[in-house]
Amino acid sequence: MDAVRNHTCHAFGDFEREAIYRAIFTRRDVRSHFQPDPIDDAVLARLLTAAHHAPSVGFMQPWNFIVIRDQARREAVRDLFLTARSQELPHIAEERQALYRKLRLEGICESALNLCITCDRRRSEGSPLGRWHNPQMDIFSTVCAVQNFWLAARAEGIGVGWVSILDADALKQLLGIPDHVVPVAYLCVGHVSEFAARPDLERKGWAPRLPLSDLIMSETYAGVGEDALKAAASASQG
Amino acid sequence: MDAVRNHTCHAFGDFEREAIYRAIFTRRDVRSHFQPDPIDDAVLARLLTAAHHAPSVGFMQPWNFIVIRDQARREAVRDLFLTARSQELPHIAEERQALYRKLRLEGICESALNLCITCDRRRSEGSPLGRWHNPQMDIFSTVCAVQNFWLAARAEGIGVGWVSILDADALKQLLGIPDHVVPVAYLCVGHVSEFAARPDLERKGWAPRLPLSDLIMSETYAGVGEDALKAAASASQG
Repeated sequence: MDAVRNHTCHAFGDFEREAIYRAIFTRRDVRSHFQPDPIDDAVLARLLTAAHHAPSVGFMQPWNFIVIRDQARREAVRDLFLTARSQELPHIAEERQALYRKLRLEGICESALNLCITCDRRRSEGSPLGRWHNPQMDIFSTVCAVQNFWLAARAEGIGVGWVSILDADALKQLLGIPDHVVPVAYLCVGHVSEFAARPDLERKGWAPRLPLSDLIMSETYAGVGEDALKAAASASQG
Repeated sequence: MDAVRNHTCHAFGDFEREAIYRAIFTRRDVRSHFQPDPIDDAVLARLLTAAHHAPSVGFMQPWNFIVIRDQARREAVRDLFLTARSQELPHIAEERQALYRKLRLEGICESALNLCITCDRRRSEGSPLGRWHNPQMDIFSTVCAVQNFWLAARAEGIGVGWVSILDADALKQLLGIPDHVVPVAYLCVGHVSEFAARPDLERKGWAPRLPLSDLIMSETYAGVGEDALKAAASASQG
């Protein structure tokens, strides 16, 4: 009983816990339904504070946040996207190219603002705690910041879309990003008229959601077992 | 007024929104205070469901979840950690090595279970939507799944620690992970007797938290401006 009481005291209350799952399950990669209304500085500051409280390897905090509002610059980024999309198209299986062409994949000019979240690779120079074996850990930390931002944004009713179809070198040139800094995520951020009930790519038939129980392995890769957990996972996803 | 009403209807209520920030601000990279009590399958299933609802490039869902409970296997992973730490130590600045040696950096054997979250690079083979220019996007999606898992765990009162001081090839061999799959995160997961008020590395003087306002840039890298946002960020960080 002591152990149970102890566990309970660190867990959130039911209502708070449900709020976390609500943010996680209703977060969307938003490409349409953006509204032009500006985002309050106080709200954007909260989202950036959430990002800044992401875990980071060696407490490196390798991120910077470039806020992009200028329409001409955004149009230039959209041009990079259009070029990149035309370069990516031939690598998509032929029978899926018609669907690919129809997908809406960015809201660069329609959203309230764009945000480029970068990773400064030099910030732990001299003492790379946790990065000697995997130098990519600083990039991973930056991705955790992106996800914190995204979930906080959902709670604030703000849509976020990650535009990955961009040539990184061209983007770096456009935003004056130095060599030692990586633009990890280019985000479209703004109020939206709706959050879709399901991911766009699921609704439009690009790919189905995989059954979670098929993704669980026991002890080793492809190891069988964890039947009770898999059953609970099937029920939980339901 | 219509716009305001519209914004409000997609935002969470104050109490729910505060719960999101509470999870984000009180989440810790846990290396100590783990308790041996098992995690209920229903709870672990909820955490994995949260991970599975992360954003993924091209709705690729590239992740798998290897649940590791066997003590002998965990001891073997800890041996990999000890070797890796001794390899990393000489690359840390000499004046910081004494502190580095004292840091507790893993809870592999003490936590209820370990979880390796992997990325299957082949899952979107044939139609790499969003990955032609940045093939790393599938790894980034997997990191988003890690962060979802981490935040949901905090809400459930479960501690999570990411062990990055490991040789990936040795870990792959130990867990039978095939060539085309990347072990993105090795996590220690379990009930804890406490969540620290601040990150360990901050409390122990490894590094201070950076002022958020110093990390915000306007329009281009190192671009000045966004003074109102920076003031709000300073106030928000508290």
